[in-house]
Amino acid sequence: MASDNNQESSVLKELPKIAWTRLKGCSDKVVSTVMCPVRDAKNLGKQDPRRITHSCKVGLAVTLVSLLYYFDFLYDGFGVSAMWAVMTVIIIFDFTVGATLGKGVNRGVATLIGGALGLAAHRLTSFNGRIVEFSVLGFFIFLISALATFIRFFPKVQARYDYGLLVFILSFCLISVSGYRNDEVMLMAYRRLSTVMIGGVLTVFISIFVCPIWAGEDLHNLTANNIEKLGIFMEGFERRYFETNNDKKQEKKASPDGYITVINSKSTADTLVNVAKWEPRHGRFKYWHPWEQYLKIGANTRECACKIDALNCYLNSKIQTPMEIREKIQEPCTTISQQCSHALRELSVGIKKMSSPAMLSDPHIKNAEAAAKSLESLLQNGKWLEIDFRDMIPAAAVALLLIEMVSCTAKLADSVHELASMSKFRAPYDNAVKANQTCLERVVVVTRVSNDHK
Amino acid sequence: MASDNNQESSVLKELPKIAWTRLKGCSDKVVSTVMCPVRDAKNLGKQDPRRITHSCKVGLAVTLVSLLYYFDFLYDGFGVSAMWAVMTVIIIFDFTVGATLGKGVNRGVATLIGGALGLAAHRLTSFNGRIVEFSVLGFFIFLISALATFIRFFPKVQARYDYGLLVFILSFCLISVSGYRNDEVMLMAYRRLSTVMIGGVLTVFISIFVCPIWAGEDLHNLTANNIEKLGIFMEGFERRYFETNNDKKQEKKASPDGYITVINSKSTADTLVNVAKWEPRHGRFKYWHPWEQYLKIGANTRECACKIDALNCYLNSKIQTPMEIREKIQEPCTTISQQCSHALRELSVGIKKMSSPAMLSDPHIKNAEAAAKSLESLLQNGKWLEIDFRDMIPAAAVALLLIEMVSCTAKLADSVHELASMSKFRAPYDNAVKANQTCLERVVVVTRVSNDHK
Repeated sequence: MASDNNQESSVLKELPKIAWTRLKGCSDKVVSTVMCPVRDAKNLGKQDPRRITHSCKVGLAVTLVSLLYYFDFLYDGFGVSAMWAVMTVIIIFDFTVGATLGKGVNRGVATLIGGALGLAAHRLTSFNGRIVEFSVLGFFIFLISALATFIRFFPKVQARYDYGLLVFILSFCLISVSGYRNDEVMLMAYRRLSTVMIGGVLTVFISIFVCPIWAGEDLHNLTANNIEKLGIFMEGFERRYFETNNDKKQEKKASPDGYITVINSKSTADTLVNVAKWEPRHGRFKYWHPWEQYLKIGANTRECACKIDALNCYLNSKIQTPMEIREKIQEPCTTISQQCSHALRELSVGIKKMSSPAMLSDPHIKNAEAAAKSLESLLQNGKWLEIDFRDMIPAAAVALLLIEMVSCTAKLADSVHELASMSKFRAPYDNAVKANQTCLERVVVVTRVSNDHK
Repeated sequence: MASDNNQESSVLKELPKIAWTRLKGCSDKVVSTVMCPVRDAKNLGKQDPRRITHSCKVGLAVTLVSLLYYFDFLYDGFGVSAMWAVMTVIIIFDFTVGATLGKGVNRGVATLIGGALGLAAHRLTSFNGRIVEFSVLGFFIFLISALATFIRFFPKVQARYDYGLLVFILSFCLISVSGYRNDEVMLMAYRRLSTVMIGGVLTVFISIFVCPIWAGEDLHNLTANNIEKLGIFMEGFERRYFETNNDKKQEKKASPDGYITVINSKSTADTLVNVAKWEPRHGRFKYWHPWEQYLKIGANTRECACKIDALNCYLNSKIQTPMEIREKIQEPCTTISQQCSHALRELSVGIKKMSSPAMLSDPHIKNAEAAAKSLESLLQNGKWLEIDFRDMIPAAAVALLLIEMVSCTAKLADSVHELASMSKFRAPYDNAVKANQTCLERVVVVTRVSNDHK
C-alpha cells in the first residue's frame, strides 16, 4: 500500500510535466503548420527580393489609381468608368518592365481599334428595325470574335499580341453591344479609352521609374549564369573522374549539378526575349540590342549541357574503367576540362561585364584544342592494347565526349563573340589600359618639365 | 529604214505581251503577299481542325451572352453590369475544357471572396470622416493588393490559382472603392457576382457540350505519341547505322527526327497536367485519373530521348568506325534496336488503346536485355583486338549507348505499367478473348441443342 501511495504521488507529481510536454508538442505542431507558409514566404523573398518590391509597387499603383474615385473633379469626369483604370492597373502590371509595357501597348492599341470598330458596327446597324438591328450586330459579333480567336493561334501573334487580341474582342463587343442600349455610346467609348490610358500610363510610369525590373537584364544574367554553371561542372569533372575517393570534392561549394536547369531553360529564355523586345533603352542596353542573339547562345549552351549530361552519366555509371587505366589519359583530359572551364568562365564574366571576352577565352580554347589533338593521337596509337578491352571502353567514351565538348565550347564562344561585336562590348581592360596611358603621359610631361627646368 | 520599220512594228506587236507579263508578275507578287497569311491560316486549320471549332464556339458564346442586352427583362435586372458577363465569357473561354473550367472556378470563387471582403472593408470604413475613410480604405487596398501579388509568386499557387488571385484583387478594389461613391454597393456586388456566374456557366456549358476539347485527352495522346516517336527512331537506327549507303532509308516516311520535339515537351506536359486536373470524368477518363503519373512517364521518355540524341550524334559524326568493323557487332545491335522499337511501339499503342501493354511489350524488353548481355560479352571477349583501336571507339560507344537504352526502355515500361494498374487499363485482347468465349459458348449450346434433338 505504501509503495502504491508512493507511486500515486510520484504520478501526481509527474502529471503537470506530462501535460506540459503534450501541450508543448501540440502547440509546436500548430506553430509549425502555421509557420510553414511563413517560412516559404521568407525563402521566396530571400531568393529574389525584387518580388517584395514588385508587390509593393502594385499596391502603390492600385492605391494611386483609386484616387480617381476620391477627387470630385476626376470622378465627375469619368463616373463609373473610373473602374476601367483600376482594372487596367491590376491586369497589366507585370513583374518586368517589358511585360508591363507589352501588355500596356497591347491594351491601349486594342482598346482604340476595337472601340472604333465597335462604334462603326453600332452606326452601321442603328438605322434598322430592332430585330434586324440586333441580328446584324450579332452576326458582326460572332464573326469578329471567331476571327480574332483564330488569329490568336498564329505562333508569332501568340508570342507578342495574344493579350491585345483578347482586349480587341472585349472592346469591340462592349462598345457595339452597349451602343444598343445606350445613346451616349460615343461618350462611353471616349471614357473607356481615356481611363484605360490613364491606368496604363500610371502603371508604366511606376514600373519604369520605381525600382524597375528589366527583363533584358534578367535575360542577360540568365545567359551568363548558365554558361558559368557549365564552367563549374567542367572544373569539378576532372577531380571527380580521376580522384573519385578523394575528399577534396567536399571542399567545392558550388553545385556541379547546375547544368540540369540549363537543359530546361528554353521556355524561360524564349519568354524573356519576347518581353525584352518591348523595353526601351536602359542601363547598359541600347536601342535595338540584339536580343535574338541570346536565343542562339542559349541553344549552343544547351548543346554543351547535353554533352555534360552524357559525361555525368559516365561519372555515375556502374561500369567503370579502373583508375590505373584512366590515369593513362589523365593529362590531356585534365587539360581539356580545365581549359574548357576557364574559357566558359571567361565567356560568362565577359557577358556579365559586357567586355569582349575573345582575348581572354580564345587562348584557353586553343589550349583545349591542342590537348584534344594530343588525346586523339593517344587514343589512336594503341598504347592501351595490352589492357582488357571491356574495361577501357567507358574511359574512351569519356575521352571522345571531352573532344566533342571542346568543339562545342568553341561554337558557343563564337556565338558570344558575335553578340559582343553586335552590341559593341568594350575591349577587356579598356579602362586599365587607359589608366596606364594617362600614367605614362604624366611621366612624359613630368620628365619634360624637369628637363625644361634644367 | 524598212528594217527599222519592221523592228518598230514587231516591238509594237510585242508591247502588249511585255506589258501583260509585267502586269502579271506584279499581280502575282501582290496575290502571293496577300495569300501568304491565308495559306498560313489554312495550314493552321489543317494541322488541328479543333482550332476552327474553338473559334466558332467562342463566337457563339459571345453572341449568346450579348442577348443579355437584347431582352428587356434581362437588361432591366442587370443594367450596365451585363458587361461583366460578356467580359467573363471572352476572358475565361480557353482552348481546352480544363483550362476553361479552371479559369471559371477561379473567377467565380475569387469574385465571391474578393467582393465579400470589399463589402466588409466598405462597411468598416464608412462611419468615419471623409479623409479618414479614404485613408483607411487606401491602406486596405495597398495591403491586400500587395499581399495577394506576393502570394502569386508561390510556385504551387502560380500553377493553379494565379488567375484567381488577380480577380480577387480586382473584385476587392472595385467593390470597396465603388462603395465609396455608390450607396447601392450591395446591389452592385450582387450584380457583379451574378453576371460573372451567368457568363461563367454559359462558357463552361458550351465548352463541355459543344465539341469539347479535353486537355486530358491531349496529354494522353501527347504521351503516347512521344513514345511512338522514340520507337520510330529506334526502328530506323539500325538500318541507318549499318547500311549507310543503302537507299532503303528513303522508303521510310515517318521522320526519325521526331525525338527532338520530345526533349522540349516538358513545359507543354506540365501545363496540360495542371489543366487536366480541373476536368470532370469524360470519355475513357474516370474521376481521379492519375494525371501526375504522366509527368513521371514524360521524364522517363525524355531520358530515353537524350540517349537517342547521343546515338544520333554518332550517326552524323565525322569520326566513324569502318563498316567492316561495325558488322562484327551488327547482330546484337540490330536485335536491341528492333526489340526496343517494338517494345516502345507496344507501349505507345497500349496507352492509346488504354489496354495494359505489359503482356505485349515485356517479351520484347526481355529479348533486348538478352541481346544487351550478349553484346556486353562480345565487347568483353576482346575479339576486336586485332583492329585499329581508334577506329573502333565510336562503334563501342554506340554499343554502350544501346545497352543503356535497353535499361532506359525497361524503366519507361515500368512507369507505363504503373499507369496501367493505377487507372485499371483492361487486359489486352480482352474483347477478343470475350468474343472467343461467346463463340465457344454458342458452339456448346448448339452442340447441346443438337444432342437434345437427337
